[in-house]
Amino acid sequence: MRTSDFSEPFLLINFKTYIEATGKRAVDLSRRIEEVGKSADVRFGVAPQLCDIAQVAAQVEIPVFAQHIDPVTPGAFTGHVLAESVKAAGGSGTLINHSERNVQLIDIEKSVLRAREVGLSTAVCAGTPRLAAAVALTEPEMVAIEPPELIGSGRAVSKERPEIVTDSVRKIRAVNQNVRILCGAGITTGDDLYAALKLGAQGVIVASGVVKAPKPEDVLTDFCKAVRKYL
Amino acid sequence: MRTSDFSEPFLLINFKTYIEATGKRAVDLSRRIEEVGKSADVRFGVAPQLCDIAQVAAQVEIPVFAQHIDPVTPGAFTGHVLAESVKAAGGSGTLINHSERNVQLIDIEKSVLRAREVGLSTAVCAGTPRLAAAVALTEPEMVAIEPPELIGSGRAVSKERPEIVTDSVRKIRAVNQNVRILCGAGITTGDDLYAALKLGAQGVIVASGVVKAPKPEDVLTDFCKAVRKYL
Amino acid sequence: MRTSDFSEPFLLINFKTYIEATGKRAVDLSRRIEEVGKSADVRFGVAPQLCDIAQVAAQVEIPVFAQHIDPVTPGAFTGHVLAESVKAAGGSGTLINHSERNVQLIDIEKSVLRAREVGLSTAVCAGTPRLAAAVALTEPEMVAIEPPELIGSGRAVSKERPEIVTDSVRKIRAVNQNVRILCGAGITTGDDLYAALKLGAQGVIVASGVVKAPKPEDVLTDFCKAVRKYL
Amino acid sequence: MRTSDFSEPFLLINFKTYIEATGKRAVDLSRRIEEVGKSADVRFGVAPQLCDIAQVAAQVEIPVFAQHIDPVTPGAFTGHVLAESVKAAGGSGTLINHSERNVQLIDIEKSVLRAREVGLSTAVCAGTPRLAAAVALTEPEMVAIEPPELIGSGRAVSKERPEIVTDSVRKIRAVNQNVRILCGAGITTGDDLYAALKLGAQGVIVASGVVKAPKPEDVLTDFCKAVRKYL
Repeated sequence: MRTSDFSEPFLLINFKTYIEATGKRAVDLSRRIEEVGKSADVRFGVAPQLCDIAQVAAQVEIPVFAQHIDPVTPGAFTGHVLAESVKAAGGSGTLINHSERNVQLIDIEKSVLRAREVGLSTAVCAGTPRLAAAVALTEPEMVAIEPPELIGSGRAVSKERPEIVTDSVRKIRAVNQNVRILCGAGITTGDDLYAALKLGAQGVIVASGVVKAPKPEDVLTDFCKAVRKYL
Repeated sequence: MRTSDFSEPFLLINFKTYIEATGKRAVDLSRRIEEVGKSADVRFGVAPQLCDIAQVAAQVEIPVFAQHIDPVTPGAFTGHVLAESVKAAGGSGTLINHSERNVQLIDIEKSVLRAREVGLSTAVCAGTPRLAAAVALTEPEMVAIEPPELIGSGRAVSKERPEIVTDSVRKIRAVNQNVRILCGAGITTGDDLYAALKLGAQGVIVASGVVKAPKPEDVLTDFCKAVRKYL
Repeated sequence: MRTSDFSEPFLLINFKTYIEATGKRAVDLSRRIEEVGKSADVRFGVAPQLCDIAQVAAQVEIPVFAQHIDPVTPGAFTGHVLAESVKAAGGSGTLINHSERNVQLIDIEKSVLRAREVGLSTAVCAGTPRLAAAVALTEPEMVAIEPPELIGSGRAVSKERPEIVTDSVRKIRAVNQNVRILCGAGITTGDDLYAALKLGAQGVIVASGVVKAPKPEDVLTDFCKAVRKYL
Repeated sequence: MRTSDFSEPFLLINFKTYIEATGKRAVDLSRRIEEVGKSADVRFGVAPQLCDIAQVAAQVEIPVFAQHIDPVTPGAFTGHVLAESVKAAGGSGTLINHSERNVQLIDIEKSVLRAREVGLSTAVCAGTPRLAAAVALTEPEMVAIEPPELIGSGRAVSKERPEIVTDSVRKIRAVNQNVRILCGAGITTGDDLYAALKLGAQGVIVASGVVKAPKPEDVLTDFCKAVRKYL
């Protein structure tokens, strides 16, 4: 990830713990995402579950993100997610502080540092413009503004609450010029994505909009058209 | 795992987040553990990190445990560990409530139920005899008594504090006759293991004693001799 | 609290963080509860918020419970609830593991021990019969079975799900004969309370049923009639 | 608290859960702190335990802070700390995110908002300069930089790691000109305090340095001399 080159939008598909994207289906969906992206020259990434990272990473070349890491170093931390293990499994980045996996402030900085140490890209999430700026101070590669109340709602943040995106962009840029800004929550169509890019986002995080779609390829193709239209 | 057949001890090797047992090294160590066990007809299992489960399970036939699962169902639970994903990756069981990953009481029962629903074996940990009996009431396949103060100490619970093991066995059996009882903490030699079995344990959990050993095979072989001596 | 004398039911009114029972209103409500109890010779206790314990305890003689304590000893634990401070404020007991303040299994045992050390009575909550028995093993003075799904529902556990109460009583008594068994969730009338006592509970926990009642005295008086009818 | 008037340093004494500052001893210590401050015209505040706020606030006129509040509104939140209850008990402010009571990032913003709604002053803690700036974006009245590794160490942050203070001041001021900056950790003498003020802090948080001192008045008097020397 070249974070300071924001010319190409980045679309991260978060698989959450959806059964439609678990195990073999995570690998299959990742392949289809890669294929659509390759055809349209649009940059996608996937964030499968921890147990699926290795199998997904073995099958695709697009970035594979963990959905969470713990701020631990190698040692006696049973049940925790070590940055090194994500890397060893073929992961290339990680989400941090997703609204469904909120962490303590102190752990955000530690996790960003741990990820950087092992060469993982980072996308730190926040639910409000002020918190988006706050996490930008920890210098991750990406900040993702996702208002929790719109996540999974089908109502796109970029259309329903465009001011949240613009306000986040303004507040983030006041403290960090080199972070890629993503937005997410409720994005399900190319129009939603196009609106997000116009508001200043350099990418999006999408989950149910793709994973739960009857035909994910249709949504992905729609996204690609929006990116091409924008560029 | 046939939990009610306690005649054959079960030795679960917990890889924690040790760098010596991360990624390829997790696969390699698992293979060596399997080999020693096969030679000596002793039942081993391994508990690698979540990201390593798929690769380990693809290479060995012995039971592969997760170190933790979350009590979530398929859905919007970014960053959580879904029982189904452990199963899909080839896992056959999970630790729950390890002292390095303590969970709320309510989540112990939920996690045991979730594991059972998807066909994962369960080993619930507790740090005191009373809590070992308490978790036995949630009807997991195994209960593991591990006094936190001895974990990683090199001083075996079975020798240093034998009364903790016997007291746990007594308290657990008073409420549950069908659960396999493991003990752990500081076990590094065949003698430690033999003592544990004599005290009434039907197996052990070992971590640094194997993972951090200069020659893990030597420790594993020593364990096998202790099991054969005991049987 | 003489826990082994179960002849007199104990009715604990949990003030939660209801504004109707905060500050002066906590003191006022406690006085009214005491008065009704005294008139009818029925044993009530109150569980106000931490900041209100001292003022409430200065004004009433009935037991004043904390809603939560932390398993810490005196020392550097900023923001935690020290058992000694509850006691010093005039508290005589504490709830532990309420479904709105779930704690780790390990902290339940520690908290019960800490409370006992300083002379606080303990009422440990659990949401299912099995967990009620599990917490009974930590030997608190009281166990409270409260199915989370009925809390605040207005549908009484003792009427809606009587088998939860009887099953809890059976499972608890199998492991602990000396603990007082309370039940709670949805109890708002004397009938609900009477049903609970008939099912084997030696008391109840009530929150919104009293605190949010238009006329708390009417509910309290109804409770007293139920107790007198039962005895 | 007039936060934008930084001319008078503010010295907040954190009682933690020290037994020397629990119950009556909290009231007594608060009185002595007030007295020394009044004599020397130096502004002190105290942060006793939650159960002690009401009794302390009834006896002193200096600001009384909670050590923690939860980001909850009035309602069914058993065992949580409601901002309104701190206010009703006579509290005038609250610590948030102390390193011994770390909270999730999202809860910092919510807690600051809740405190402001009820008229409580806020002092948000952070352990590193970057995080100090991050929390400053939530617009509390005060930000406290306290490196966890020096807390309780007896080695003053202002002398041992002066660059942490200056770096924090610089980073905080880049994003917030109206927040009072406190520093803490290891401050036990007037010299430590003087050094902190010279580095740009507008106050300090002190705990064991006062609470555990053989003669707290001596330390407090020493602090006052340092303030007078600085002004």
